[in-house]
Amino acid sequence: MKNILIINSGSSSLKFQLIQMPSEEVMASGMVERIGLDDSKLHYRVKDNAISEIIEATDHAVALKAITEHLMDSENGVIKNKDEIAAVGHRVVHGGDAFSETITINDKVKEKIKEFFSLAPLHNPPNLKGIEVAEKLFPNSEQVAVFDTAFHRTIPRKAAQYAIPNKFFEKDHIQLYGFHGTSHKYVSKKAIEELQNENSRIISIHLGNGCSITAVKDGKSLDHSLGFAPVNGLIMGTRSGDIDQSVIFYLIDELGYTSQEVSDLLHKNSGMLGLTGYSDLREIEREAASGNKRCQMALDMNAYRIKKYIGAYVAVMNGLDALIFTAGIGENSDVIRNLVCKDMDYFGIKLDEEKNKVRDKKLRAIEAEGSKVKILVIPTNEELEIAQQTFELIS
Amino acid sequence: MKNILIINSGSSSLKFQLIQMPSEEVMASGMVERIGLDDSKLHYRVKDNAISEIIEATDHAVALKAITEHLMDSENGVIKNKDEIAAVGHRVVHGGDAFSETITINDKVKEKIKEFFSLAPLHNPPNLKGIEVAEKLFPNSEQVAVFDTAFHRTIPRKAAQYAIPNKFFEKDHIQLYGFHGTSHKYVSKKAIEELQNENSRIISIHLGNGCSITAVKDGKSLDHSLGFAPVNGLIMGTRSGDIDQSVIFYLIDELGYTSQEVSDLLHKNSGMLGLTGYSDLREIEREAASGNKRCQMALDMNAYRIKKYIGAYVAVMNGLDALIFTAGIGENSDVIRNLVCKDMDYFGIKLDEEKNKVRDKKLRAIEAEGSKVKILVIPTNEELEIAQQTFELIS
Repeated sequence: MKNILIINSGSSSLKFQLIQMPSEEVMASGMVERIGLDDSKLHYRVKDNAISEIIEATDHAVALKAITEHLMDSENGVIKNKDEIAAVGHRVVHGGDAFSETITINDKVKEKIKEFFSLAPLHNPPNLKGIEVAEKLFPNSEQVAVFDTAFHRTIPRKAAQYAIPNKFFEKDHIQLYGFHGTSHKYVSKKAIEELQNENSRIISIHLGNGCSITAVKDGKSLDHSLGFAPVNGLIMGTRSGDIDQSVIFYLIDELGYTSQEVSDLLHKNSGMLGLTGYSDLREIEREAASGNKRCQMALDMNAYRIKKYIGAYVAVMNGLDALIFTAGIGENSDVIRNLVCKDMDYFGIKLDEEKNKVRDKKLRAIEAEGSKVKILVIPTNEELEIAQQTFELIS
Repeated sequence: MKNILIINSGSSSLKFQLIQMPSEEVMASGMVERIGLDDSKLHYRVKDNAISEIIEATDHAVALKAITEHLMDSENGVIKNKDEIAAVGHRVVHGGDAFSETITINDKVKEKIKEFFSLAPLHNPPNLKGIEVAEKLFPNSEQVAVFDTAFHRTIPRKAAQYAIPNKFFEKDHIQLYGFHGTSHKYVSKKAIEELQNENSRIISIHLGNGCSITAVKDGKSLDHSLGFAPVNGLIMGTRSGDIDQSVIFYLIDELGYTSQEVSDLLHKNSGMLGLTGYSDLREIEREAASGNKRCQMALDMNAYRIKKYIGAYVAVMNGLDALIFTAGIGENSDVIRNLVCKDMDYFGIKLDEEKNKVRDKKLRAIEAEGSKVKILVIPTNEELEIAQQTFELIS
């Protein structure tokens, strides 16, 4: 039995789970939010007990220290001392072209994570901060990095390279990297178990704050909708997804925007928010149901984009065994699932509308009888995937 | 019987065909190239006779005058006076959201074409110049505009709008317009005749200097790969086609390019040229055949992109009756056609490799026996389509 502490360190938050392996039991979980800001808050959950308290988390070190104290607390704690944590598994967003596997962290690995700051300026710096803080606080625990990009390192060059001069691929490392790899890997493994066929052709649709879709063949990522940075592909909460590049130049050259303003626009004010004024999909669905035309159009556009990617990936794999919906929206929105699967019987996709409406937290099949393609709703669990990979590495 | 003069006016060239309708006989054809430059040249072809001569074409007016003189020449001419030209049909690239039909040109139409200069800065200005010159030279002929974008006005909003704030669609007219409409319309009409089914689901693949792909259902354009400007979608001779927008910001913010340099890069030095150093596909195919790895990769990438669009459009139409290859590369490259159709039997696409290799200038079917989907090679003829539409309008 080994305890693995999972850390997901963001710019102003630090999420954690302590998972016992191989039993997969979540011993404690929670987060510190608003790190470095006023009113930092620590949330700590152990079994049925949930605590929230204001703390003074001036930086990530203070935040992790506060978490650790709760973990060892005589009342709500789950361990006696820090050495009971065998390893710390860190979520790292961008592993560039350097990491196709989960890896034990050393100076070289940290140097590489730093090298990719420019590829993921919002994520890699706080990810590295989380690592440095954990190294100090848990000097006797193994530190392990699990990269969001690693699962996609199997994507062949013909799908990963952009059609710009070769030097950008070869020297500047500009290519499709892909993200949400931990989630896509986790749910596609589950689907393979369900199908009892390692050589399945699966399309995994991750719809959360960020959205992406992956073609998974023989358990390996073959193509994916997010590219060089996590902005492309599907329509997201505030991100545009795919957009004709000439629009960017038009906004700059004709409408007088700066490149920074356009970048901000495409990241923060586009997607479902830009189309509807709402960023929460549940609200958009309620509005659409009560006749809001913009919300109806945005849902149609969203599903239409997903449909096109499904078609593209069926072409890439020359077939399809299962479709997976996962993450917040994918697991909970029967509306989106219904729009996506509608009129897709040429691919052998047939949804059972009643099964689709059932709410459940477990893996479930929602295809109609006679559907050639299995349609699965699979709750994702990136923390567990990180724990499994970390445990495997240290075992 | 009416003679229609077809004009395609570019920045330094003016192409023409004189077509007799409804017999569709091409009476004369040719072009003036290097207008406004040294060594302007006029090419004139009538039946089996072809003339090329150096002329001093200082501007488009001089160029069209020289063409007209040849048309009325006692030796190689085909008409006696200018009034034998019933109408002039002009190819106009960008009709914005104003024109979904071919239209008789008046001041309002010219004003609109001008309004869309910023949407097609390389094309609309010389297109308008061609109109103005023809109006002066043929005051008694009807002037008609046929827009490259018109065929795509049936694309529904959910496919045409980008996921950026609504105001850009509603006020700034930023949306997918689509191009090569005259070609896609022409070949899809031919395919519908061939299938003898007006309610066909067709994917038309236009591969020339520019490349694009259109989903055509019931004879109407339903979706299309080129967007706001003709740069998106498929990999072209020198244009990148689809690219993650974050690459643009990375080039500007991290690698120090100006936005103009990036735009030039994506237009002029990307695509097959950027990937291989060659811009002529025949050369790339020869190089690939003799072992050039970059050329092999570029061909794979090119076909892979087309495959993905085929899949996407099969999803959009929930089926497929015919696939069309057209334009220079589409009509002549059995290599590309073979790469595209390979491993696509899940869609019912099966190519007959022998039929694929046959070289012929006529419409031909190249699917294998038992292929659910018809695979057609159809020579495009934009001039004839313009002549037909112009003739129909003036009749």
